[in-house]
Amino acid sequence: VSSSASDNPVDRFEAFHALLEQADVDGLGGFFRDSHPALIADALETVEWDQRPALWELIEVEQKGEVLLQLHGEVRQQLIALSSEKELLRALQNLQMDELADLDAELPISVVDAMVQAMDEQSRRRYDAVRSWPDDTAGGLMDVDAAVVRSDVTLRSVIRYLRQLRTRESGLPEHLDSLIVVDRENRYLGMLMLSDLVSLDPETAVSEVMLQTIEAIPVDTASGRITRLFQDQDLISAPVVGSSGELLGRITIDDVVDVLRDSAEREVMSRAGLSERTDIFAPILTSASRRAIWLGVNLVNALIAAWVIGLFRDSIDKVVALAIFMPVVASMGGVAGTQTLTLVARGLALEQVHRSNAVRLLIREIVQGLMNGLFWALVVALIAVLWTGDMRLGVVFGVALVINLLTGAMAGTLVPLVLQRIGIDPALAGGVVLIAATDVVGFVSFLGLATLFVL
Amino acid sequence: VSSSASDNPVDRFEAFHALLEQADVDGLGGFFRDSHPALIADALETVEWDQRPALWELIEVEQKGEVLLQLHGEVRQQLIALSSEKELLRALQNLQMDELADLDAELPISVVDAMVQAMDEQSRRRYDAVRSWPDDTAGGLMDVDAAVVRSDVTLRSVIRYLRQLRTRESGLPEHLDSLIVVDRENRYLGMLMLSDLVSLDPETAVSEVMLQTIEAIPVDTASGRITRLFQDQDLISAPVVGSSGELLGRITIDDVVDVLRDSAEREVMSRAGLSERTDIFAPILTSASRRAIWLGVNLVNALIAAWVIGLFRDSIDKVVALAIFMPVVASMGGVAGTQTLTLVARGLALEQVHRSNAVRLLIREIVQGLMNGLFWALVVALIAVLWTGDMRLGVVFGVALVINLLTGAMAGTLVPLVLQRIGIDPALAGGVVLIAATDVVGFVSFLGLATLFVL
Repeated sequence: VSSSASDNPVDRFEAFHALLEQADVDGLGGFFRDSHPALIADALETVEWDQRPALWELIEVEQKGEVLLQLHGEVRQQLIALSSEKELLRALQNLQMDELADLDAELPISVVDAMVQAMDEQSRRRYDAVRSWPDDTAGGLMDVDAAVVRSDVTLRSVIRYLRQLRTRESGLPEHLDSLIVVDRENRYLGMLMLSDLVSLDPETAVSEVMLQTIEAIPVDTASGRITRLFQDQDLISAPVVGSSGELLGRITIDDVVDVLRDSAEREVMSRAGLSERTDIFAPILTSASRRAIWLGVNLVNALIAAWVIGLFRDSIDKVVALAIFMPVVASMGGVAGTQTLTLVARGLALEQVHRSNAVRLLIREIVQGLMNGLFWALVVALIAVLWTGDMRLGVVFGVALVINLLTGAMAGTLVPLVLQRIGIDPALAGGVVLIAATDVVGFVSFLGLATLFVL
Repeated sequence: VSSSASDNPVDRFEAFHALLEQADVDGLGGFFRDSHPALIADALETVEWDQRPALWELIEVEQKGEVLLQLHGEVRQQLIALSSEKELLRALQNLQMDELADLDAELPISVVDAMVQAMDEQSRRRYDAVRSWPDDTAGGLMDVDAAVVRSDVTLRSVIRYLRQLRTRESGLPEHLDSLIVVDRENRYLGMLMLSDLVSLDPETAVSEVMLQTIEAIPVDTASGRITRLFQDQDLISAPVVGSSGELLGRITIDDVVDVLRDSAEREVMSRAGLSERTDIFAPILTSASRRAIWLGVNLVNALIAAWVIGLFRDSIDKVVALAIFMPVVASMGGVAGTQTLTLVARGLALEQVHRSNAVRLLIREIVQGLMNGLFWALVVALIAVLWTGDMRLGVVFGVALVINLLTGAMAGTLVPLVLQRIGIDPALAGGVVLIAATDVVGFVSFLGLATLFVL
């Protein structure tokens, strides 16, 4: 129970890899038996894909349900495909209703059918309720096994009800810090905190002590807004209601934490053209061909820029210094644009950027681009003049830099706004579009101005 | 209480900006009175810095403490600086101990002193306990007002104790879903769930029903590992212990959610050289000069690349097509390297990449880089031959591309590993170092090979 060196995940992890190196089957079996499903999932995700089938055999079937739940994307799919239908049914027996609903899209249909058949009438209804909503809405995130009480009863009868509930097969819901209070028509009224339930006079009526400050979440609310509601109001659980205020279920904070982690990973990964569901130890041909797509997209970008440069080949032929300075103009615009894009995309995700302040933000970014453009234009112009001795080249270099920093500011503001409006994730496509813009404008402005004024 | 259109944060937000536009002081005051502190904080963060002093005046002092808590970085500092010492003391009166500890680094020392003086002996001791640990460790995150019970008492006496606690000035701790069970020496033994407390026979001893599966968190555990512990084990709260197992406090999931959000923001922002604490509506000269630093860092990068190109000016002078294709080689290496860097940095953050599998990962990335290099080398070589009719140029283009994709793969793996080893955040500096490497190698390999074989 106490924390020794061997509880340290990093040490446990190194121990696992040592056992694997020695192909110590007994040792690995023992490691899995003694480990939390999250650590087992971590271990499975960090070995080569072709080592996983043998390891999966060593894990006890009772643990496999929890392990599948902790695994991500492709690794989960691989191990589901490795398991027999019978094994899956046994592994999934101990999972909660909302946990099953998280997995079921990836399970074989025959397994899902068998699971649903084994449920009693009430469970089946609950299960269907959760599945009928998209995963990224309140309906998809909610649990339907919420403990509900009526407002006109006393605390004593609530306690009696909880004692009965505990003796039933389903038992008490997980993460129970509060009960949801409804009226006779099952409409949400407030929350009864367990800490109030245990510490107040049992003869008090629920309606007198229930908390009314927690607002119900409409069932079609997007997951991004739900995470912010939980953060802002420090919620542990919140009720989910339908369009006429009827109680449908309950969202608990562990679901919210999962959404938060997944969306943070998605954002970081998608900026590099990667998916957060990707198995980093997938068969190497699979991994390589996935990367190829992103490289192809960026090659098109780079070839467009090359084509633009090609339009000015005669100018470069005459003044070779143009070839030396042109990447500087292009890359500085890209860097400035990426900064603006990151700020605006974050503002959009947090719902801090709207119609009412988008124009103000655009103006701010343009002014900043102009100020930084003028400052760095002086610097690069000076460098170019000292380097080449050509005053006109320095001026053209500086002016092109100002133009491209302004382009970066404008593209960095407008690209995410437009992408969001047409329903494309700015984090994935924003960078590519932005760099295309700053590359083309950078090369055209520098080479074009040079052609007009230097040659 | 029910959810109408006006509860939608976006609509509320637009309403706020409309009131601001009309300079409707009464309307704005009403908006603040009816709004949750989180929404007020959002509103304050999305107006120009010079509009904030007037708005701050319109917020009631009782709300200001909660609003300060919800604000981020610089905006929080601005509004603290705008408030008188007396006003701050009143505003902070209603905050919890751990909330105060979050704020105190930014408060004037005189205010902190006055706050500490006003505390009773016990509160002062608790407050000092939290402040003595760094913010990003278990000690810095924990609450010290944990409700603690001994294992040898009955549930009935626990309930009696909670009733007493509730009548005291401090009241019951927030987010109480469980009580921490300790032995006579205050060493952690297990958790007593409130749902068990209300639904089990009151004559049962705590030791019989306490949950022993939740492991205590050592007080010096880093926040990143704590967030993973909470996620993996679906915890709501967990005990924090010192080196000899003695109970020091309790971490609740709302603190964990804040850590998770902050680190996700930091990661996304720092990749663009931005700080997540930055006020996006700061005075424009301040904003612009901050961006200037990042542009300067990248200008150095771009000038190094320009200098490398300059070494080959005679070659470009002879074959102008080199100037057209060289940016393609450089940018493809940067894209491939960024993908690898993102994957490895994520693996490091999740503690999935270690000594035991880092070499395997490096080999995988190199093999993938080679496979993609060969494939895209064929494509670009073909394009170059069709475009210029020069077979040797096509071959050089392709070979340089293979070299630079391999460089990207190696730099993308090694740069984050080395940066982490020497204690620099890979998310901030990784991209700059990587692009410097792929730019230089890209230009040198392409222009160098061309100088040797094409001229």
